[in-house]
Amino acid sequence: MQTILYTNDVASAIKKLVDELSPVSVHIITDENVERDVLPLLNLDYPRICVKAGDENKNLESLSQIWAGLIEQNATRHSLVINIGGGVVTDMGGFAAATFKRGIRFINVPTTLLSAVDAAVGGKTGINFEGFKNEIGAFAPADAVVISTILFQSLPREELLSGYAEMLKHGLLSSREAYTELLEFDIVNADMPSLLPLLEKSVKVKEHIVEIDPKEKGLRRALNLGHTAGHAFEGMALKRHSQMPHGYAVAYGMLVEMILSHLAEGYPSQELYRYADYLKAHSYGAPAISCDDYDALVEFMRHDKKNATRDAINFTLLAEPGTPLIDRTASTEEIKAALDIFRDLMGI
Amino acid sequence: MQTILYTNDVASAIKKLVDELSPVSVHIITDENVERDVLPLLNLDYPRICVKAGDENKNLESLSQIWAGLIEQNATRHSLVINIGGGVVTDMGGFAAATFKRGIRFINVPTTLLSAVDAAVGGKTGINFEGFKNEIGAFAPADAVVISTILFQSLPREELLSGYAEMLKHGLLSSREAYTELLEFDIVNADMPSLLPLLEKSVKVKEHIVEIDPKEKGLRRALNLGHTAGHAFEGMALKRHSQMPHGYAVAYGMLVEMILSHLAEGYPSQELYRYADYLKAHSYGAPAISCDDYDALVEFMRHDKKNATRDAINFTLLAEPGTPLIDRTASTEEIKAALDIFRDLMGI
Repeated sequence: MQTILYTNDVASAIKKLVDELSPVSVHIITDENVERDVLPLLNLDYPRICVKAGDENKNLESLSQIWAGLIEQNATRHSLVINIGGGVVTDMGGFAAATFKRGIRFINVPTTLLSAVDAAVGGKTGINFEGFKNEIGAFAPADAVVISTILFQSLPREELLSGYAEMLKHGLLSSREAYTELLEFDIVNADMPSLLPLLEKSVKVKEHIVEIDPKEKGLRRALNLGHTAGHAFEGMALKRHSQMPHGYAVAYGMLVEMILSHLAEGYPSQELYRYADYLKAHSYGAPAISCDDYDALVEFMRHDKKNATRDAINFTLLAEPGTPLIDRTASTEEIKAALDIFRDLMGI
Repeated sequence: MQTILYTNDVASAIKKLVDELSPVSVHIITDENVERDVLPLLNLDYPRICVKAGDENKNLESLSQIWAGLIEQNATRHSLVINIGGGVVTDMGGFAAATFKRGIRFINVPTTLLSAVDAAVGGKTGINFEGFKNEIGAFAPADAVVISTILFQSLPREELLSGYAEMLKHGLLSSREAYTELLEFDIVNADMPSLLPLLEKSVKVKEHIVEIDPKEKGLRRALNLGHTAGHAFEGMALKRHSQMPHGYAVAYGMLVEMILSHLAEGYPSQELYRYADYLKAHSYGAPAISCDDYDALVEFMRHDKKNATRDAINFTLLAEPGTPLIDRTASTEEIKAALDIFRDLMGI
């Protein structure tokens, strides 16, 4: 079982974990932005391996750089890696640790809300390869995760909103009350320590699901809520060379999938309005799509990797907030009808 | 639990396994020698990924070639990899499968005695990196292993003797009777089908040990018998740019460690003679060492990766054939005394 610590005293938590694990050596893996902005706050005296920032550097070259760095710093199979950074660092550093000498221990310290709520927990590690996201990787849970909202204080508004979308997703998978509490919290203007208890609740939703289904054979697919449609919006943005934060795409995708849930599973219509209003009030914006894009969006959904074995398109839907329904399918016509309603609700 | 099939009808066994596992596609990973010498016998109609043969090609470049080949052949997470080859192919192909899309299923079909008895079973996969052997890898057991001695019919005598040394090791870890049966079998002149039942017994010794201790925290270190001293002989041969088959080095290493066992643990002296006579009768040859090499050999043993946390040098020793003693240590003086006796017994 993975240890997850929720604390706003990060440096002490790390030192305590290192004492408990008593490795022969400790190696920090981070990226150049985190090294500049976050590491000075932590005052940790361990050797570092610093990779280039950004998803475009989550590749075999950076991975080799980490492996070579561990060798150069004389890491052994009794050493400890500490990944400090966003999802790129925790995914890639976790994979490097999981494969160095057939696996050494590692700790994740997420420095973005998105990686705290999603990437740092649950054991998915990996890199992109030949243009495919997370094509190479392993299931390897961190020995411990240190979650602190203090580290998010310098994050831009956009990154907070992006991570918060994954928290909303966990609320939707958990209970109406948890979801409502999240809709009422003002992530943009909140002080960060007040986010910590909400984040703890949110991560526990994921922990619980991953514990029941670590290899994604059933229930874990519920975590895919918002992602089939979301990945289509991301794919289209990428094709147009425009930027779309992952959490924004998931936020839009959740609305599309709520609409499919409404059409097929009786998800209440007032919940559609409540959620669409939330997105507008918090300036999530909207994807630039018209009805001319529907065919391309459906094709993106069809080729999303979670759907590889099926002819119909697979979705996680909802009966109501708190009640996910996995392995549901929708036809092209249903998806196009949902996209019409989506554009209407978002005013695009 | 890993399925291990012992059969001399390899093609049928593979086809049956494929039927049972019902993958969406099948991909053979092999090397250029096996493709030329063995695949024509099997008549399997699956797409192939063929890497360059030899331990010097067990590297990141070949691994990337396999990953790219799987993408090119449209492998999905429901595909199956079949590794057909020696230890290089099964180690590297297993690692490629274990990390492609975070892990797909794979079968090993060892084509050398050494890989059948050792590398194809037990879940160690990996590649060499920056000159370090198996530096990058994972513990990932094959879904099934098909073991057939028919495939060894074209192996040179040297390769048979090399693999047989690992079988002798399993005998020594198992029982006096199993060990004696192996010493009395004539591997060089035997017809290959008669080897199959002995090989099955031998692999089961390893299976049993790996089942109890998959991550090498205790008992599995018994499998290291002969390897601490053996790796030193290999290291010295490498430094001198001379060839020494891995199993030969293990065969010599076992004699050194039997002598240490005699000195420290009362291993019977007549067993030393019996084993040394066996090596000479089967022309295993002897390493070209003199007393001037002792210091270098001790240093190689000290730096063997299994010994990284200790000051004293760690060995698996024996109380008698069939009774291993893990986590024993020997001093430099004891090792030098053992090397004197080793040279005397081997006549060098």
